[in-house]
Amino acid sequence: MGTSTLVLLRHGESEWNALNQFTGWVDVHLTEKGRSEAVRGGELMAEEGLLPDVLYTSLLRRAITTANLALDAADRHWIPVHRDWRLNERHYGALQGLDKAATKEKYGEEQFMAWRRSYDTPPPPIEKGSEFSQDADPRYAEIGGGPLTECLADVVARLVPYFQETIVPDLRAGKTVLVAAHGNSLRALVKHLDNMSDDAITGLNIPTGIPLRYDLDENLTPLVAGGVYLDPEAAAAGAAAVAAQGAKK
Amino acid sequence: MGTSTLVLLRHGESEWNALNQFTGWVDVHLTEKGRSEAVRGGELMAEEGLLPDVLYTSLLRRAITTANLALDAADRHWIPVHRDWRLNERHYGALQGLDKAATKEKYGEEQFMAWRRSYDTPPPPIEKGSEFSQDADPRYAEIGGGPLTECLADVVARLVPYFQETIVPDLRAGKTVLVAAHGNSLRALVKHLDNMSDDAITGLNIPTGIPLRYDLDENLTPLVAGGVYLDPEAAAAGAAAVAAQGAKK
Repeated sequence: MGTSTLVLLRHGESEWNALNQFTGWVDVHLTEKGRSEAVRGGELMAEEGLLPDVLYTSLLRRAITTANLALDAADRHWIPVHRDWRLNERHYGALQGLDKAATKEKYGEEQFMAWRRSYDTPPPPIEKGSEFSQDADPRYAEIGGGPLTECLADVVARLVPYFQETIVPDLRAGKTVLVAAHGNSLRALVKHLDNMSDDAITGLNIPTGIPLRYDLDENLTPLVAGGVYLDPEAAAAGAAAVAAQGAKK
Repeated sequence: MGTSTLVLLRHGESEWNALNQFTGWVDVHLTEKGRSEAVRGGELMAEEGLLPDVLYTSLLRRAITTANLALDAADRHWIPVHRDWRLNERHYGALQGLDKAATKEKYGEEQFMAWRRSYDTPPPPIEKGSEFSQDADPRYAEIGGGPLTECLADVVARLVPYFQETIVPDLRAGKTVLVAAHGNSLRALVKHLDNMSDDAITGLNIPTGIPLRYDLDENLTPLVAGGVYLDPEAAAAGAAAVAAQGAKK
């Protein structure tokens, strides 16, 4: 065991995961399946005796609801909560709201994969005031409505300083920290924790709803690189499903 | 309109409300009816354009879940959250878990009403380690497991300093503050806000799930004594139902 424990939880299936659409900062709901995944994630934590002392979430309902359901199932609904836009999903720019398979067909496999998985290629910016933009959303008023698009490098640039300033002090105080967030904000965090190269992170997929446990030493280096999923078999199947997105017709 | 707005929300029906049992600090779930009440409370806030900037809850699941459901319905699930035991329901001592009607029959109307509604008569203390005690609950470790019983005066004594130290600064900053809590912790707060006498508060009942809006002037005095329920007709019916508790066979 390390000196501190960090638990990462990607939100359960959302309505737009189910529809195979790019979501980004659009604030969609969980599906019933997603709600069940969240409850199961909490049950897994309780079964392992992995009891968070503090919760960090994004400002997006699919992560917030996932955390609420998981913590209630683990009888830890009462722990302190911090929410911040820096844990949000990557902003998908003009792709937000588009069907993944149709996007792949229209722009071709190479461009599609560059937008989805390259480290530093952002999609085209979203138009302000358009249907799926967030520039008028009150939760982002303090940051001018937020970004208009992001690549994974942009997510790393906003997330890592937040992690160091707010989450690391809790870890150093010996707390077990739960971060409930998104595929790409968690990939950014894993890249930082595991000191992965820009290339290596492009191949990593994080499954939904399965807690990923990192025990960290005094230098915040993972005792096991990549962490340990509480349900490894389900995690492997889930990661394969994420990798296959866009292939659906 | 005042310089600041405070919204009080009593949790929706809990499993033990439905069973007519004294609950106190026992951490019971909402019923389906209670969940619907919470959603309706959030819809009422949204319809009125009453959008909280910050949430305060107790450490008890029925208040936490009520707030989660109401804020999600009002599209304000992303606001900052603070939780504190000082917003908990009154600790009902040895009465926790007992049927209200049976308790009334056993001890008589006078004793029953004294425990329920007198300002300064606490029920007998709960036995440590008993089925419905909280002394081993990790969320109360920092306060030695919490009280063994409380009268309303005890709730006022713990709640008002917390209100002044943590909630008042948010009100003074112009924020709209939502407090999601319990029948007796909200009665304690209303007593303070409306400067009610120890006698007057004994006759006040707060209905479940209906937001109670207080617009406050620069001295934090309510512009309308007693505040304004967002659904006054439902609130009157709900308060009458609370007053009638214990009468059920």
